[in-house]
Amino acid sequence: MTNKSWSLAQCADAYAKAGIGGISVWRNVIEAVGTDEAVRIVRGSGLKVPAVVRSGFFPASESPRRQVALDDNRRAIDQAAVIGADMVVLVCGAVPGMPLVEARAQIADGIATVLPYATANKVKLAIEPLHPMYAADRSAINRMAEARMICEQLRSKWLGIAVDVYHVWWDPDLEREIRLAGEMDTLFAFHVCDWKPDTADLLNDRGLMGEGCIDIKTIRSWVERAGFNGLCEVEIFSHKHWARDQDEYLKDTLKAFEERV
Amino acid sequence: MTNKSWSLAQCADAYAKAGIGGISVWRNVIEAVGTDEAVRIVRGSGLKVPAVVRSGFFPASESPRRQVALDDNRRAIDQAAVIGADMVVLVCGAVPGMPLVEARAQIADGIATVLPYATANKVKLAIEPLHPMYAADRSAINRMAEARMICEQLRSKWLGIAVDVYHVWWDPDLEREIRLAGEMDTLFAFHVCDWKPDTADLLNDRGLMGEGCIDIKTIRSWVERAGFNGLCEVEIFSHKHWARDQDEYLKDTLKAFEERV
Repeated sequence: MTNKSWSLAQCADAYAKAGIGGISVWRNVIEAVGTDEAVRIVRGSGLKVPAVVRSGFFPASESPRRQVALDDNRRAIDQAAVIGADMVVLVCGAVPGMPLVEARAQIADGIATVLPYATANKVKLAIEPLHPMYAADRSAINRMAEARMICEQLRSKWLGIAVDVYHVWWDPDLEREIRLAGEMDTLFAFHVCDWKPDTADLLNDRGLMGEGCIDIKTIRSWVERAGFNGLCEVEIFSHKHWARDQDEYLKDTLKAFEERV
Repeated sequence: MTNKSWSLAQCADAYAKAGIGGISVWRNVIEAVGTDEAVRIVRGSGLKVPAVVRSGFFPASESPRRQVALDDNRRAIDQAAVIGADMVVLVCGAVPGMPLVEARAQIADGIATVLPYATANKVKLAIEPLHPMYAADRSAINRMAEARMICEQLRSKWLGIAVDVYHVWWDPDLEREIRLAGEMDTLFAFHVCDWKPDTADLLNDRGLMGEGCIDIKTIRSWVERAGFNGLCEVEIFSHKHWARDQDEYLKDTLKAFEERV
């Protein structure tokens, strides 16, 4: 759901009409209309729901706050189960000043703690490695390698990785890690957008595919060779594109997807 | 030379008075006053010159442009030799849209080509891995691992690595790579500043040590354990700090260095 300025109903309607196969739904969007209404909209549209976005944020300095995060992750799993989403995407979290090694340990612990709940609810958990520029406060998992290590440690068919080209395109080990994820059956999601060399904002200046420099087709070929056959999800955080006429933006997105993904 | 708003003479004078051991000099600063005058200022100050900053930028789509880059690197080596700098810092370069594998190959080729000239002039070349957010257009060398691989390939006591905490603090392999660099005698430089979680600008919003979240003392302990005994260089690109009273800023820098490095 990359048209942030639209409601869930507008997105679902427009995406279904455009022949898009699915929609991943943000939790704040579900909460804005209420779960029942969100379920009604999504079912009515006929769209698949690859993911509920997002939970995670496991590390915290104080144990009570870690507990709050675990509860919140269980709520996200509930929401995914109710809305029929395959997975919850995990933005794993980081605490400014906490050693990254400690943050990574707390992340692995947190995932281990909620994984049985996800399993019982038949909801997958997808660790999304985030770009190193988010290592201070959003995620201490910044390469596929660290996501893989957690998957190796916890070995479950309900735990895998969400590959977003924006976060990992620069990684010299990317091709190898995608191949390993394929062998481990942990390739759960594939997100596309573009990295603009003149990025002006660390959060909300992503490019439409083709506006930047990522060779998305090549990365997609690696992902598919590794056995991924799910939906390619467009995820563009962009003040610029969100401010545009959203019908035009959707049209451009479809064209960019056709030509560049 | 982190007080960008000061001239070379002002910096050299203030740093010498403050008891700072050295000054790395940017090429544009040398060129602004002319090489003879720059040499006179630096010699007169009694400061060491760890580095001339910067050359590199090896990859280009067209062969003539690669040649221009090689010539420019030789000029930087000349400048370092004349001013008595130990090394030239290499920002290796990247071309938006060029596959990173190709950019990395052109970088290794470029360094191999200019290394004999550096050797003949007794000037070291220090590969500076840049943060992955610069992979599109500034450097395709974004981890110490890739810098190490080039050092392994070209094996020379004149080729090593400049470790800047801003670029590498997030790297899960950092401690190991610093140890390996120590074993290979490639730890040429150590740069400090800080990463602010609320970074507003990809280039010029670095923090003074302590303004951000990098555990600089720990990284310094790794570098020293690996045998580094050169100067710790403060390098803060910051519109905010450059706009301040530069005497105050220098005082704050010295205090931050004392407490946080």
